[in-house]
Amino acid sequence: MSRLSAIVLAAGEGTRMKSHLPKVLHKVCCKEMINHVVDTVKAAGAGQIIVVVGHKGEMVKEVLDKEVEVAYQNKQLGTGHAVMQALPLVREDTEDVIVLYGDTPLVSASTLTDLVDVHKKENNGMTILTALVDDPEGYGRIIRNKEGEIAGIVEHRDADEEQRDINEINSGMYCFKTRYLREGVKQLGNDNIQGEYYLTDIVEFFRDRGIMIGGYVCTRPEEIMGVNNKRQLADAQRTMNTLKLERLMEEGVIIDDPDATYIGTDVQIGMDTRILPGTFIEGNCSIGENNVIGPGVRIVNCRIGDENHIQFSVLRDSDIGNGCSIGPYSHIRPNCDIKNHVRVGNFVEIKNSVIENGAKASHLSYVGDGDVGRDVNLGCGIVFVNYDGREKHRTIIEDHAFIGCNVNLVAPVRVKKGAYVAAGSTITKDIEEYSLAIERGKQKEIKDWVRRKGFAE
Amino acid sequence: MSRLSAIVLAAGEGTRMKSHLPKVLHKVCCKEMINHVVDTVKAAGAGQIIVVVGHKGEMVKEVLDKEVEVAYQNKQLGTGHAVMQALPLVREDTEDVIVLYGDTPLVSASTLTDLVDVHKKENNGMTILTALVDDPEGYGRIIRNKEGEIAGIVEHRDADEEQRDINEINSGMYCFKTRYLREGVKQLGNDNIQGEYYLTDIVEFFRDRGIMIGGYVCTRPEEIMGVNNKRQLADAQRTMNTLKLERLMEEGVIIDDPDATYIGTDVQIGMDTRILPGTFIEGNCSIGENNVIGPGVRIVNCRIGDENHIQFSVLRDSDIGNGCSIGPYSHIRPNCDIKNHVRVGNFVEIKNSVIENGAKASHLSYVGDGDVGRDVNLGCGIVFVNYDGREKHRTIIEDHAFIGCNVNLVAPVRVKKGAYVAAGSTITKDIEEYSLAIERGKQKEIKDWVRRKGFAE
Amino acid sequence: MSRLSAIVLAAGEGTRMKSHLPKVLHKVCCKEMINHVVDTVKAAGAGQIIVVVGHKGEMVKEVLDKEVEVAYQNKQLGTGHAVMQALPLVREDTEDVIVLYGDTPLVSASTLTDLVDVHKKENNGMTILTALVDDPEGYGRIIRNKEGEIAGIVEHRDADEEQRDINEINSGMYCFKTRYLREGVKQLGNDNIQGEYYLTDIVEFFRDRGIMIGGYVCTRPEEIMGVNNKRQLADAQRTMNTLKLERLMEEGVIIDDPDATYIGTDVQIGMDTRILPGTFIEGNCSIGENNVIGPGVRIVNCRIGDENHIQFSVLRDSDIGNGCSIGPYSHIRPNCDIKNHVRVGNFVEIKNSVIENGAKASHLSYVGDGDVGRDVNLGCGIVFVNYDGREKHRTIIEDHAFIGCNVNLVAPVRVKKGAYVAAGSTITKDIEEYSLAIERGKQKEIKDWVRRKGFAE
Repeated sequence: MSRLSAIVLAAGEGTRMKSHLPKVLHKVCCKEMINHVVDTVKAAGAGQIIVVVGHKGEMVKEVLDKEVEVAYQNKQLGTGHAVMQALPLVREDTEDVIVLYGDTPLVSASTLTDLVDVHKKENNGMTILTALVDDPEGYGRIIRNKEGEIAGIVEHRDADEEQRDINEINSGMYCFKTRYLREGVKQLGNDNIQGEYYLTDIVEFFRDRGIMIGGYVCTRPEEIMGVNNKRQLADAQRTMNTLKLERLMEEGVIIDDPDATYIGTDVQIGMDTRILPGTFIEGNCSIGENNVIGPGVRIVNCRIGDENHIQFSVLRDSDIGNGCSIGPYSHIRPNCDIKNHVRVGNFVEIKNSVIENGAKASHLSYVGDGDVGRDVNLGCGIVFVNYDGREKHRTIIEDHAFIGCNVNLVAPVRVKKGAYVAAGSTITKDIEEYSLAIERGKQKEIKDWVRRKGFAE
Repeated sequence: MSRLSAIVLAAGEGTRMKSHLPKVLHKVCCKEMINHVVDTVKAAGAGQIIVVVGHKGEMVKEVLDKEVEVAYQNKQLGTGHAVMQALPLVREDTEDVIVLYGDTPLVSASTLTDLVDVHKKENNGMTILTALVDDPEGYGRIIRNKEGEIAGIVEHRDADEEQRDINEINSGMYCFKTRYLREGVKQLGNDNIQGEYYLTDIVEFFRDRGIMIGGYVCTRPEEIMGVNNKRQLADAQRTMNTLKLERLMEEGVIIDDPDATYIGTDVQIGMDTRILPGTFIEGNCSIGENNVIGPGVRIVNCRIGDENHIQFSVLRDSDIGNGCSIGPYSHIRPNCDIKNHVRVGNFVEIKNSVIENGAKASHLSYVGDGDVGRDVNLGCGIVFVNYDGREKHRTIIEDHAFIGCNVNLVAPVRVKKGAYVAAGSTITKDIEEYSLAIERGKQKEIKDWVRRKGFAE
Repeated sequence: MSRLSAIVLAAGEGTRMKSHLPKVLHKVCCKEMINHVVDTVKAAGAGQIIVVVGHKGEMVKEVLDKEVEVAYQNKQLGTGHAVMQALPLVREDTEDVIVLYGDTPLVSASTLTDLVDVHKKENNGMTILTALVDDPEGYGRIIRNKEGEIAGIVEHRDADEEQRDINEINSGMYCFKTRYLREGVKQLGNDNIQGEYYLTDIVEFFRDRGIMIGGYVCTRPEEIMGVNNKRQLADAQRTMNTLKLERLMEEGVIIDDPDATYIGTDVQIGMDTRILPGTFIEGNCSIGENNVIGPGVRIVNCRIGDENHIQFSVLRDSDIGNGCSIGPYSHIRPNCDIKNHVRVGNFVEIKNSVIENGAKASHLSYVGDGDVGRDVNLGCGIVFVNYDGREKHRTIIEDHAFIGCNVNLVAPVRVKKGAYVAAGSTITKDIEEYSLAIERGKQKEIKDWVRRKGFAE
């Protein structure tokens, strides 16, 4: 059992976000910032995670996993005050506590692990994650004494000229020995203009008591970036996406244009699969090898095998086997199970259906609530009439059947093995094996009607 | 009444554009460069705008607003000559005149206002908009005397080595006292290799007469960029688009990827609306809050309310209410009024129609010239047969009606309240309230036809 | 007859590519890297091209043009060994041989021509293509003596500190006098840790014999970039694409966003044609003037005239005339000949068909194996029923015919001049000129059915 806890500060409104949403609920690569941070501290080994919520706290709580604990900071009286609200929840046996912000979605588990490792190795009371940056404007600066030890943190607004030249900054992420944190937080005052309790004031207290304060310089400064407005939200998204694409390319995925490809952090893709620009792969997706996906494809929560070709299409919550051809302009809606070597052509919608090996739905059709057998050929303009105005019903088409164009299959109905349906028929009754079903009138011709009507040009 | 006039020089052919179009008619973010400049000088307070046209002048005139005056420069004899053509049109009571080029679409009204303010405050006869740039290659350099006053402008080709090191350049935009401009232009000669009248020669004349020449250094040098070829056209477009997106993000709009989102300068978007990549919003659009728009959406001249979801679709000259779901792959053509909580699904085209609250057109349908009532359910493959080969007619579907799949509604026709149409019917006559209409033959079956025909596998 | 040969080294596996494919078969801008190099050396004047294959050599051979000769290097024993395998194939009358790698797709014919020119002018035995780069890490360095002559090449791993500071690098591309190459290669040893024959060791041999070694510094260092992993593959693609777009813009093509437009190296586009973002033009395409193409268009192997508007569509292996409007969401499949002023609207698929001037297929239709005459109007939901389950047949629609909505045309069938087909009909027999054909039942109404069924709300 891990004896590391994490306190995630997520009570702020984030007025610079200009939003109805609390700041930490903004999504980066389709996941709320707070959940990025929660997932990261969990991956870094935190056995307990406490999120301090405040502004629209119930909304924040709602997106959190159940195992995450929530502390309420009803008034926003500073970071020190926020930590005070969380400390009573920290388990008695917790040795160390990571404190960080809920709006830093880019921090990696490995950086936090390194922070904790340094903290433990140096036996510090507090270890600060710092970073060396080109432009420290706006950040708190790390003040070190001649021995290189951390002597203090000076906020940007309080820094004198010389201090402003310091380019080692405070990330706002710390690791504390729990007992020192509890002690130190009690001593924090709010004797300042804002009347707030600043967690950084704890440094002075530790220093005076001779409690060791260490620093760990983050090797990738972009990780500590906080998101305070929607420009930074876009930046964070770009950084996270780029990181994911770099990793995929390392693993052998072909990305034609990494600047125009958007892949969620949890997506897995196999070697030699090629992703063309304008493609979005989101949520919980696993994709095999040698596929060609894109351009213009959006895939959400799908399992996709090998050797498929998918272009200009939207797929959601479905499974695709191997060797299928999908699109352009097809829409695979939730709960489809499309097996191998299936062809889904242009302007085809499939929903809640099973399509067996070798079946074809090449053009302008709606397959809803259907079971389509092996090598079935659906013509053009086929509609699975699944809804009678009150309920949905299923259509079953057995192996090798052939459905002519502009045919309605009024569910519930079954087209048995090898049967044919003539073009233009509306089918309401089951069709026997190898029979032809037809619903059609006689073609009549009214001679010279066009001329008589005066329509001829 | 403003006593500021503007002369916009737009007579050049722009051969480096490699185009059949006159240079200033090239569009940046969907608006002709000349109209960007005209709109900007108007916003900067010019009460009279004169555009000097020459090469294919009638084409240029055609895109201008009627209140813009046009002067003709039939031979391109230099900038001084161009101004000469415009001066007779300048109103008698005009105090100051801005002179600038029609190919500088990025200049902002605030920069021009600042120029005029400096001009008036310093009581100059001429004030030059200058800029400090890293690479002054090709631009005229601003020569200042020891007192820092402007002593001259030297063209790049005439500059000596020392002068070429000057990085303050002439933007080609000026503010003049009208009476000095009239006087000075008369003195311009064409005693040079090109045999042209250069407006910049006026500096010498003013200097000799002791007329004050001021300079205002533009704070955003990118604004003075002229567009001379199609590479620069792309650059200008990127700059203008980025500027627009930055402003939208400041106002609380979520832009997933600002590098792959294209939004016209006149578009308004509300807080927390999210725009996904590959989205184009053009022309006169106003979009509310909390929408999710994109990826792959193109919207031109639409009013869109709040809380809509629109993906992979094209919308043009229409209104969308609140809470609608549109796409993927729908096409809203001009003159649609789509109310609230309407669902427009995949492969659906709507044109010149009203769709009332809660109606659904989920799949593969064409709604043309229709009035669709509340909560109407249009099945799949519905066609509003609006054209008889000569005229278009309307189809009216009253509230709560249900139209089965692959149905033709041959206009003019009315489906009354709550009526049903059976799948596969072609409807040519009105249907009474709560009746079922059906046009269908009997389903026949020819036993074993497939085997007998030898089609069975 | 050219007396220049080229040896292209393409035997390596490229394990860092993480791929099932041999490295040189990876595509950059839709063409295999090896074929980029082959096309380039051919354009640079090589009369004989020998590709040395090894790892999965048969796969590589398969993509090569027939006139390219293939040498096999069954064991990968170094570059010198690879050249040894090729030399027996080099023609007796070959004066000079270019040696280069198959994974350098960016090298241009003009750079190779310059290399050969320098080689000949200086009468060198060997001329090395070198480059000056900011970061020489990993590359072999060019060692020059005090006279500036090339004294050697030192591999990165063998370079001392001082040598590592040299920023002139070996591109791995050379031009040799054939007879010296034959001689020098025989002397190569494999007395090194890897036990490989290094071609660069030839420098020492030449130097000792007093054979002149020259260097030609490549003016565009990005050209010598080798592709060793999928990140570099993306980089190479971006570089090649950007180069192509720059050239097109110079020629007067309007590219709205060069960062989101993808155009193959062999595509030709006329002046003032505008390409919107998210557009892909691939293969052997020739496109005229004044078209507007995009956004969201993919065109492969098409000839397209002037003044067409194409948006959100896919076109393949077809011809388009002038003044057509295509899309959004249309799919032109192979072997279509679409003449002038044709309208192909939304959700329309056309395959293997001829569409004459002025014809319209505006909505939701499939035109397969059809001949559609002048000014024919195809309504919405038209299906050319071209497949009977065994064979495909053609549908012929003569000039001025009008096909109503949701009509099936069961091929083979002919609709003669000016004939009309009523909506909802399935047509199986030819229709006479100016006649109306109709296949439809009577519309029946079951009063109050909806209420009686309890469906009314």
